[in-house]
Amino acid sequence: MINRLAIIGVGLIGGSLSLALKQANAVHEVVGYSRSEDVRQQALSLGIIDRAAGSIGEAVKDADIVLLAVPMAAMSAVLVEVADHISPQTIVTDAGSAKAQVVEAARVVLGDNFSQFVPGHPIAGTEKSGPSAAFATLYQDHRVVLTPVEQTSPDALASVRVMWETAGAEVFIMDTEQHDVVLAATSHLPHILAFNLVAMLAQRDDCDEVLRYAAGGFRDFSRIASSDPTMWRDICLTNKDAILDLLEQYHQGLNQIEQAIKDQDGETLMMLFESAKQARNSRFNEPNLKDNSEI
Amino acid sequence: MINRLAIIGVGLIGGSLSLALKQANAVHEVVGYSRSEDVRQQALSLGIIDRAAGSIGEAVKDADIVLLAVPMAAMSAVLVEVADHISPQTIVTDAGSAKAQVVEAARVVLGDNFSQFVPGHPIAGTEKSGPSAAFATLYQDHRVVLTPVEQTSPDALASVRVMWETAGAEVFIMDTEQHDVVLAATSHLPHILAFNLVAMLAQRDDCDEVLRYAAGGFRDFSRIASSDPTMWRDICLTNKDAILDLLEQYHQGLNQIEQAIKDQDGETLMMLFESAKQARNSRFNEPNLKDNSEI
Repeated sequence: MINRLAIIGVGLIGGSLSLALKQANAVHEVVGYSRSEDVRQQALSLGIIDRAAGSIGEAVKDADIVLLAVPMAAMSAVLVEVADHISPQTIVTDAGSAKAQVVEAARVVLGDNFSQFVPGHPIAGTEKSGPSAAFATLYQDHRVVLTPVEQTSPDALASVRVMWETAGAEVFIMDTEQHDVVLAATSHLPHILAFNLVAMLAQRDDCDEVLRYAAGGFRDFSRIASSDPTMWRDICLTNKDAILDLLEQYHQGLNQIEQAIKDQDGETLMMLFESAKQARNSRFNEPNLKDNSEI
Repeated sequence: MINRLAIIGVGLIGGSLSLALKQANAVHEVVGYSRSEDVRQQALSLGIIDRAAGSIGEAVKDADIVLLAVPMAAMSAVLVEVADHISPQTIVTDAGSAKAQVVEAARVVLGDNFSQFVPGHPIAGTEKSGPSAAFATLYQDHRVVLTPVEQTSPDALASVRVMWETAGAEVFIMDTEQHDVVLAATSHLPHILAFNLVAMLAQRDDCDEVLRYAAGGFRDFSRIASSDPTMWRDICLTNKDAILDLLEQYHQGLNQIEQAIKDQDGETLMMLFESAKQARNSRFNEPNLKDNSEI
């Protein structure tokens, strides 16, 4: 049982955790803070939080666990305010999509309390945001990755782990760097690739005409290009190193395909496409894949 | 009513057209040829064709319309054999995914009969192939693009158009080059991008571990990387110019994003991502888009 949970940023991510813990009777009191008075009142009236705090300091005072569920770009500034008002026992965790930068900010800002900081990343979301989008089952069957460092207290880690598991999530422990590379490879880079393709087509004079012929394959491929631009800008800026490394590798792969097309080298193309098909099929078993021929 | 239709390549594409025309009572006799005796017998026993020919020459003799539904790589060789056995009245059409190269081959090979050649591209398919995969409704609600050139006979064009419409397709007329650019942009390039990402991940020692964290967004993005490698090798080789042009533009776009990440230039990223989101939403209205946050 968590006696007092403080949630900074009571939107979809923070709000859903609160609802899940309340439903499981696993928290005594949830105190919430958001910059916007409207959002705070909304969270209160929806029963997501028990008390709305007027400041970050007020929210985190006497909390057992503090969850930072704010946009990546706001994380450092919020950490500074949190640091001034927590006790040495307070556990602080976050929900940011890239971990290395948050960990370094926490290390500097939290000082002696850094061992109580548990870096986290719930891999979940929907297209909606704000407290009204929150729901208690968001984390069921979803993964939450925690990336403790050498200094992280095992007790703090265990508490955060139990909290997410109580909310229905499957918790994985990873290195900070490994997390950032894995997410860059399977999420951040694909988003950049899809954004780049659609942005490139959007620049064409005949964009509407071209997109008229875009069918199922394109729709699936480009779905993630409908994601929130602000969030993805922040992810690109905060997971800089891992993304730039992978972009470099991606360019090289594309150059190889380009050269093979120029040289009419079907063997190289075949080898690359075969390895891709095999790797993907080993991960996703989709026997009913339709329309993969070319649309 | 087509008196005699000859189908070279009685697989999914050719076989489904035959079944659709038979169901509509729009063809008197369908003669089929495939390199493999097994495939010919299968097509015959499935009622896809009325007669199996022992050679391309035998198949196209006295046909009103000849459909070439063979892999892109075989198109030129098949055209040479067709040319020797058709009459000046025979209409020849094809089902290739890239048009410029087929049109040039037909121009050279068919000589005086080139005006009877109607370049076509049914934008349809499933993950299966062969005669057993064929079904009469494949083309319903699908697009077929015809790309006549200056010399193409209006009557031949009209006959091929009616044939596809009878099979349930919506027929669009486009320039050859426009077709190849539009398909390169909305289909060929996305396939290359997805193949390249998955092939790159497949090379990693930690590929299995990385792919364990790949969720919904990645699954949709990379679905087309499960497509048939042979077909996509052929498309890359035959739509060379349009694909290389677009790959060049794609590299430039990626460089811009890379530079913006290096410079921590959030404004440029925001501008690009916004334009992509807007263009995609204008084409695909998917109010129930789930899990777009980052997975």
